[in-house]
Amino acid sequence: MPLVSIADVRAAADDIAGTVVRTPLLPTLWDDELWLKPESLQPVGSFKLRGATHAVARLDAAARSRGVVTHSSGNHGQALAYAARALGVPCVVVVPEGAPQVKVDRIRALGAEVRLVPPARRAVEAERIAGDTGATLVPPFDDPRVIAGQGTVGLEIVADLPEVDVVLVPVGGGGLASGVATAVRALRPSATVIGVEPELAADARDSLAAGELVSWDIEQAYRTSADGLRMQLSELTLAHLRERLDGIITVTEEEIHAAAGRLVRDARLVVEPSGAVALAGRLYHRAELPAGRTVAVVTGGNVEPTRLASLLAPRR
Amino acid sequence: MPLVSIADVRAAADDIAGTVVRTPLLPTLWDDELWLKPESLQPVGSFKLRGATHAVARLDAAARSRGVVTHSSGNHGQALAYAARALGVPCVVVVPEGAPQVKVDRIRALGAEVRLVPPARRAVEAERIAGDTGATLVPPFDDPRVIAGQGTVGLEIVADLPEVDVVLVPVGGGGLASGVATAVRALRPSATVIGVEPELAADARDSLAAGELVSWDIEQAYRTSADGLRMQLSELTLAHLRERLDGIITVTEEEIHAAAGRLVRDARLVVEPSGAVALAGRLYHRAELPAGRTVAVVTGGNVEPTRLASLLAPRR
Repeated sequence: MPLVSIADVRAAADDIAGTVVRTPLLPTLWDDELWLKPESLQPVGSFKLRGATHAVARLDAAARSRGVVTHSSGNHGQALAYAARALGVPCVVVVPEGAPQVKVDRIRALGAEVRLVPPARRAVEAERIAGDTGATLVPPFDDPRVIAGQGTVGLEIVADLPEVDVVLVPVGGGGLASGVATAVRALRPSATVIGVEPELAADARDSLAAGELVSWDIEQAYRTSADGLRMQLSELTLAHLRERLDGIITVTEEEIHAAAGRLVRDARLVVEPSGAVALAGRLYHRAELPAGRTVAVVTGGNVEPTRLASLLAPRR
Repeated sequence: MPLVSIADVRAAADDIAGTVVRTPLLPTLWDDELWLKPESLQPVGSFKLRGATHAVARLDAAARSRGVVTHSSGNHGQALAYAARALGVPCVVVVPEGAPQVKVDRIRALGAEVRLVPPARRAVEAERIAGDTGATLVPPFDDPRVIAGQGTVGLEIVADLPEVDVVLVPVGGGGLASGVATAVRALRPSATVIGVEPELAADARDSLAAGELVSWDIEQAYRTSADGLRMQLSELTLAHLRERLDGIITVTEEEIHAAAGRLVRDARLVVEPSGAVALAGRLYHRAELPAGRTVAVVTGGNVEPTRLASLLAPRR
């Protein structure tokens, strides 16, 4: 299976400049060897904008006129809607009936068309639209263009901190981890890239241990509050991670919650639980990680106000 | 009175690189012509780090060995402590007895020595220390080095958005507004720089109207929740603002609160009330402002968790 190359990631960086925010590395007050990469500051609140923008930017004029379609109502759906609007491309997002109205409203506000379908028909409906209209299906992670786009996070980390030793990256579907590992391994071979996964959705850990895709029951994965990390690897992302990821660790729900509170209170970042998973690894599993200058990717900040309020209690 | 020049601001930019975060401009989802400059992401949570770092960096070796001193327990005190530690310079911060313990703890955690004195003796004690030890007194705004350091915010705004039309900047002591107006006027003469002040602490508006310093009673200014903006202009900052600021508007407490909520919920930034004042101008006083591509400086994010929680109610 052909893997994404560093040249692909570099090309993605050129494509997304102007639409995606070039996020800085933020030093932390509590750890002299830790920097945060705050992707929560992207206009739609997550790194997903990188892959989505790259996927849309790569379309030729004919494909652009036919538009794009996806079936994520979460961060990827919003990211694709934003990217499509920025590049003047029509966009349809298939959303399961019963999804929170606020998500539907946000996608519509970004100019995308929303199609509500029964949850079980999401993927089928998106494929039907693609087949009927010629729109390009842009999946959230199982796509080389998306992986290359997410890899620009790694490119920027090495550009801003050339002496980086360790990069901690959350693993859900594996698109971000695949892209970041591709970039960091190419540009800073001595650095290690470590995936961090919720203990309650550790299919990537199991798949890497087994050397093949290991499925977790969907109900099991739904126990984690890190809703951006419930998805499973694909063959494509597993192939990248087997080749390029240096290791994977898991964190508990309590650790994720505490790390999110730390980010809100001490780094002044509004984060969703998934966005705190990498930091939880540094805070609570340091003995399992290599020493040295470490970057934790803060992947997203789309959190309900009530959950955010619950992070403000001063327990540490 | 000699004013700070664009050359001074450029020199400051060189001096602070490496200690201060190069913050990005963040586009907003709700306003196509609005960008945020999130200084809340500085490691001590405010733009004050720029001026403090520049003031310390400008000291020669002999002065560095004698150290620095200030009497702010707020953002400037923390900023000076951080800058001094980063540059290996001893630092004393004079703090009024009765200041919140959390602030004292933070300054100590940054390696500075804290001297507790009765509130009325703060300034006198800081001057006494400077006199006795030869330490350099670094004031929060009434200082050309500090103004030049804060001006780097304007330098970065024009670098990142060369076609900027309007810059909105909060006014407290006037150091930030003086520096930003200096930089923007030099680099983008067609742009306007507008100060934004709480209606409950509008001494800068009154001073600019009168053409001389107009004092507000300290109890009056303490009515605003924007605690970073209760200070009054100095002769030095007034001279800069008279020459270089294009206008000043005021915002209400309700507008500040609503703008802070918008930043937390929709821009994923944790902000203090002062940090939301510029945005409040754009949101609620648009008719008083020039049209066009606008940048609002989000000055700081040091907010108590309970106040932050109060911003999460979904009123708009």
